[in-house]
Amino acid sequence: MSRLRIGLLGAGRIGSMHAGLIHHRVAGAELVGVFDVMPQSAQQVADSVGTTVFDSADELIAAAEVDAVAIATSTDTHVELMTAAAGAGKAIFCEKPISLDLSEVDEALSAVAEAGVPLQIGFNRRFDPGHAAVRQAVLDGTVGEVRQVRITSRDPEPPPLSYIEVSGGIFNDMTIHDFDMARFITGSNVIEVWAKGDCRVDPEIGAAGDLDTVVAVLTHVDGTITTIDNCRQSAYGYDQRVEVFGSLGMSTSENLLDHYTTNRTADGGHGARVPHFFLDRYIPSYLAQWESFVAAVNDGSEPVVTGADGRAPLVIAQAAWRSVREERAVPTNEFELELDQAEPTGTETWTPSD
Amino acid sequence: MSRLRIGLLGAGRIGSMHAGLIHHRVAGAELVGVFDVMPQSAQQVADSVGTTVFDSADELIAAAEVDAVAIATSTDTHVELMTAAAGAGKAIFCEKPISLDLSEVDEALSAVAEAGVPLQIGFNRRFDPGHAAVRQAVLDGTVGEVRQVRITSRDPEPPPLSYIEVSGGIFNDMTIHDFDMARFITGSNVIEVWAKGDCRVDPEIGAAGDLDTVVAVLTHVDGTITTIDNCRQSAYGYDQRVEVFGSLGMSTSENLLDHYTTNRTADGGHGARVPHFFLDRYIPSYLAQWESFVAAVNDGSEPVVTGADGRAPLVIAQAAWRSVREERAVPTNEFELELDQAEPTGTETWTPSD
Amino acid sequence: MSRLRIGLLGAGRIGSMHAGLIHHRVAGAELVGVFDVMPQSAQQVADSVGTTVFDSADELIAAAEVDAVAIATSTDTHVELMTAAAGAGKAIFCEKPISLDLSEVDEALSAVAEAGVPLQIGFNRRFDPGHAAVRQAVLDGTVGEVRQVRITSRDPEPPPLSYIEVSGGIFNDMTIHDFDMARFITGSNVIEVWAKGDCRVDPEIGAAGDLDTVVAVLTHVDGTITTIDNCRQSAYGYDQRVEVFGSLGMSTSENLLDHYTTNRTADGGHGARVPHFFLDRYIPSYLAQWESFVAAVNDGSEPVVTGADGRAPLVIAQAAWRSVREERAVPTNEFELELDQAEPTGTETWTPSD
Amino acid sequence: MSRLRIGLLGAGRIGSMHAGLIHHRVAGAELVGVFDVMPQSAQQVADSVGTTVFDSADELIAAAEVDAVAIATSTDTHVELMTAAAGAGKAIFCEKPISLDLSEVDEALSAVAEAGVPLQIGFNRRFDPGHAAVRQAVLDGTVGEVRQVRITSRDPEPPPLSYIEVSGGIFNDMTIHDFDMARFITGSNVIEVWAKGDCRVDPEIGAAGDLDTVVAVLTHVDGTITTIDNCRQSAYGYDQRVEVFGSLGMSTSENLLDHYTTNRTADGGHGARVPHFFLDRYIPSYLAQWESFVAAVNDGSEPVVTGADGRAPLVIAQAAWRSVREERAVPTNEFELELDQAEPTGTETWTPSD
Repeated sequence: MSRLRIGLLGAGRIGSMHAGLIHHRVAGAELVGVFDVMPQSAQQVADSVGTTVFDSADELIAAAEVDAVAIATSTDTHVELMTAAAGAGKAIFCEKPISLDLSEVDEALSAVAEAGVPLQIGFNRRFDPGHAAVRQAVLDGTVGEVRQVRITSRDPEPPPLSYIEVSGGIFNDMTIHDFDMARFITGSNVIEVWAKGDCRVDPEIGAAGDLDTVVAVLTHVDGTITTIDNCRQSAYGYDQRVEVFGSLGMSTSENLLDHYTTNRTADGGHGARVPHFFLDRYIPSYLAQWESFVAAVNDGSEPVVTGADGRAPLVIAQAAWRSVREERAVPTNEFELELDQAEPTGTETWTPSD
Repeated sequence: MSRLRIGLLGAGRIGSMHAGLIHHRVAGAELVGVFDVMPQSAQQVADSVGTTVFDSADELIAAAEVDAVAIATSTDTHVELMTAAAGAGKAIFCEKPISLDLSEVDEALSAVAEAGVPLQIGFNRRFDPGHAAVRQAVLDGTVGEVRQVRITSRDPEPPPLSYIEVSGGIFNDMTIHDFDMARFITGSNVIEVWAKGDCRVDPEIGAAGDLDTVVAVLTHVDGTITTIDNCRQSAYGYDQRVEVFGSLGMSTSENLLDHYTTNRTADGGHGARVPHFFLDRYIPSYLAQWESFVAAVNDGSEPVVTGADGRAPLVIAQAAWRSVREERAVPTNEFELELDQAEPTGTETWTPSD
Repeated sequence: MSRLRIGLLGAGRIGSMHAGLIHHRVAGAELVGVFDVMPQSAQQVADSVGTTVFDSADELIAAAEVDAVAIATSTDTHVELMTAAAGAGKAIFCEKPISLDLSEVDEALSAVAEAGVPLQIGFNRRFDPGHAAVRQAVLDGTVGEVRQVRITSRDPEPPPLSYIEVSGGIFNDMTIHDFDMARFITGSNVIEVWAKGDCRVDPEIGAAGDLDTVVAVLTHVDGTITTIDNCRQSAYGYDQRVEVFGSLGMSTSENLLDHYTTNRTADGGHGARVPHFFLDRYIPSYLAQWESFVAAVNDGSEPVVTGADGRAPLVIAQAAWRSVREERAVPTNEFELELDQAEPTGTETWTPSD
Repeated sequence: MSRLRIGLLGAGRIGSMHAGLIHHRVAGAELVGVFDVMPQSAQQVADSVGTTVFDSADELIAAAEVDAVAIATSTDTHVELMTAAAGAGKAIFCEKPISLDLSEVDEALSAVAEAGVPLQIGFNRRFDPGHAAVRQAVLDGTVGEVRQVRITSRDPEPPPLSYIEVSGGIFNDMTIHDFDMARFITGSNVIEVWAKGDCRVDPEIGAAGDLDTVVAVLTHVDGTITTIDNCRQSAYGYDQRVEVFGSLGMSTSENLLDHYTTNRTADGGHGARVPHFFLDRYIPSYLAQWESFVAAVNDGSEPVVTGADGRAPLVIAQAAWRSVREERAVPTNEFELELDQAEPTGTETWTPSD
């Protein structure tokens, strides 16, 4: 079978990671070109994996040798690029969030739907073996009827203030992964959000209008309540835990450790750190994400993280912001003319067909 | 040194446990009598530990050979018995909650204060070695400035409906331990409560006006946010976990297991259950609680869980109920004419002097 | 049902522990008397549990109110006391080792057999919930056909030299528990021993003719090979681990910890110590041992650790000493005129009937 | 800095793994050619990483564009290829074992010494983060003076009989990694070996003159005793554990798991499998091995696993075979005219300089 030929838009931190994975480790795909508004960044990525630099996003999207477009540019360009790629009939992989403006999201999703091209959103954590095992414990009935979900997600260090200022705020930038995880684990949409937060890490973050330490409580259609703890700074590493509790049991995805050696002395037991950040923790999930995208495009099956799955967490994030500002629980339908938000689609765990 | 002579009021499940511990395992104390409104229950306990049955609570409280009174009767009798014991100049150990009526609580605490007798409230979980180690990690600076606390507490099975009906509801009966734990771990009072819950275990519990599955989010004076998950039914055993997160690290008290043998086969690893219920989990903490009470009475030092510590969680519980009913975050000072709630007092971890 | 009335011979460290357990925590038994060659020790134990001091071992053994005799005296007196108790028709619990002289062991076992009285040897570790779960994984087929066993046993500190000098050496005094464990876990006798050791802890131990750090490799009748690591000094606590490996899997009994709280900081994870010594680790097994003895005597069933189970590890210990001295693998039948050593008898795991 | 240009000899299972790692993941190296006696295998590897097939080993060794030769052919060709590569002045990486014939090993090591080229032997497990942390705990004094080492190593399934027949037997093929690990962890040579084994997995292995289930006990120069358990078949995955015990503590490298999610139900806790085999477990160590080799060649420093480190485990393996056959402990100096075996050299743990 011929390999899926992918063109990459965006050669920053996340884009260059995608380039390396596609080139070195995804057997079914090859990287055929890259574009970035910073030509130097594009060149650096192109050199490292032996691919071509395009002069513009349009050119890359239009190129005959590009089967699929990977969008890893800044958020404010996603909608335009998705729309263009859809217009060109290309399969699309797009980093989260699609956009911070729901009407723009809807516009992009309409374009994709009209073109009938495959679209996958970059919620890579669904592909983490540990988190997927939690979802599996729901799917196969191990935990019974779901009642409560706990998610803890803490970054090692806050991003630069310049990034914070354009990020859309913690709920759109960081918690959005957890909002997606809550939908993935339960397979149930969120109808109400209560959130609270503060600046405990750095007052400059507050001065920029953002929060750095937050709690969000989500109520799902099926009655499940999800509790999320977030912080922008964690001295012990990148804390990533997911837990579901149901009528028959509980499933808990714990943090990994850098290694599994324990020293025991008169002072007790001493073990390794949790991985420092997402490149240390989630490479296997990024890899599986690419394999699932390639398989879906090749099979003509629907990608497991759809446009609707990209949209729903944005609604939750907006409700979270309103909850913090108005100090009340906010129904998600305040953001919808009619409540016809699709059920979470990619809620099977994905396994390579091998 | 002579032993502290304790008279026991209440010979039900928790009372008979106290009797056994005092008689068999607390070196510095002896049980000198027991009273229960069910004479048969009193007799059974008396037989099992070789002590005397009193004909009335008053008689036991008045008896010259009683140095301290342990109150383990039904909640609605606590205030009357505390007041009587205080009047008789006896040291008092009282099970939680003191009362469901705050004005009655204040009345009882006044009587105790006036009499100047030692009073300790039965928040035994503070004495659990694991939870105490979490508090210690706050006290000694290991976790730095506290930002978030997570507490999960789930009972194996709901109590009988007859009990539920007089329990004051889940927040006063079950979550109250977690409200106390939140104050103990942080050493900071609670100023706001947001709570949400449902009946996911048994609709009869809802018909009785109670909830069986709840989440509560507490905001502390120092800015810490505590998240609590509770459920009245847990298929995998008695889930009791406490975690604190701060600027320098995290401290997590995990569930115990019935044993620490793991079987590994082609199906993965298989280990033991978590202990079934509180008698399996918390005996060491009940024992340490008694040792600390005996030591405090003997030393003339203040018991480590004071009347104020017994009162504060009741305020939080009332705020939680109001939050559920009015669907809003409820400041605890709605329940106080003036906000002079004492800081949590027993927030050192207690260690036997020997 | 009436309680089993036990008379205790020996009021030293282990004897006084037995006294406390029988008096306070074994519902089906009561302690009716104690004797020790040091009258003060006997008195101290008697006071602590409210029982009678006897003037001699003979008097205690003969007393009508004594149903069973617990022998916790120094090893060199076991055979005489067992023989006397058997002669008096009393049920016998005897601490390990029965004797360091095999012909004396056989003499004592003959006396017991002739008298037809129940006899249980104090290999308490068989009753440890973790180790018993390992045996259970063999019995129920979880690990399949057994191939290898690993046992690690390390004391926190060496005993006083005065004790070492009369102990019979590390194999008879310390490793003997592991020799028993090897037979218990596999359900198979030992046919060959290879052992090696040195003094790594204290040269005085070597000057006394003993070793403090040893390895023993046992070959069982069924082909299983057991590897044992021992040391008289362990800085991190009392190390007690047992593992079996078979055709279908592995079962591992890990060390307990003082508590299950982990602190995570920039330095990694930090947890509690393993329990300091046998009173911290094995109280539940001592308790279950008593309950099983009481149940066996009451039921008329054979105790689960028989005289033959007490004898076999002594043969292994002697082979181990010879292996060290002669630097060769030593068949256990060098110590038997004919090889008719019984199969390990108490190899079911014991569970309270209630 | 220019990249180290590596030519690969041998394109079987291990050779093709090396090719993939060098090509995709070792930044400082590039694969410039491959040779295999099966041209098809060479072609397949060349295609997958875009490199050239050479017509003979000699041609590859002689090629100007080859800076270093990686030898991953069958064991019986190692000595000839090492000698040739040394003659050509190329840096050498050679898979273990160098040869099964000690005089041939010495011949090859002489040739390398004469040529003065760098040589590294493929004991990748030294680079495993967990095992390296155990070595580190010895080096930095955490465990104090070393007394005992335990190593367990079990393969998921035995190799084909055809492989077994030419493998040199379990001690030369499988245990040899553990012999190296014992030297690495302790930093001390082995002076005596006692070993015992049987065929518990497959009688055909015995018919081929080999064993499948063995125990080896090594005595080191410094008095440490190492115990090794091996089996060719393990139902629960690839068991790889290393532990050191010393005067101040213990350090234990545990098995990894496929993920760290635990399901808890009424049946207890259930977790993931240990990784299936070496490609699942040891890729990070293979990668670090290549990085250390490239760094050593570039720096002109001595590779961390030397020729002497490749030779010493072969002596231990021969002693182990003699121990099994002659049923006695075998001093390693029976295999040396004069005992001048070098101290283990690469006993620092290796960390990437960046």
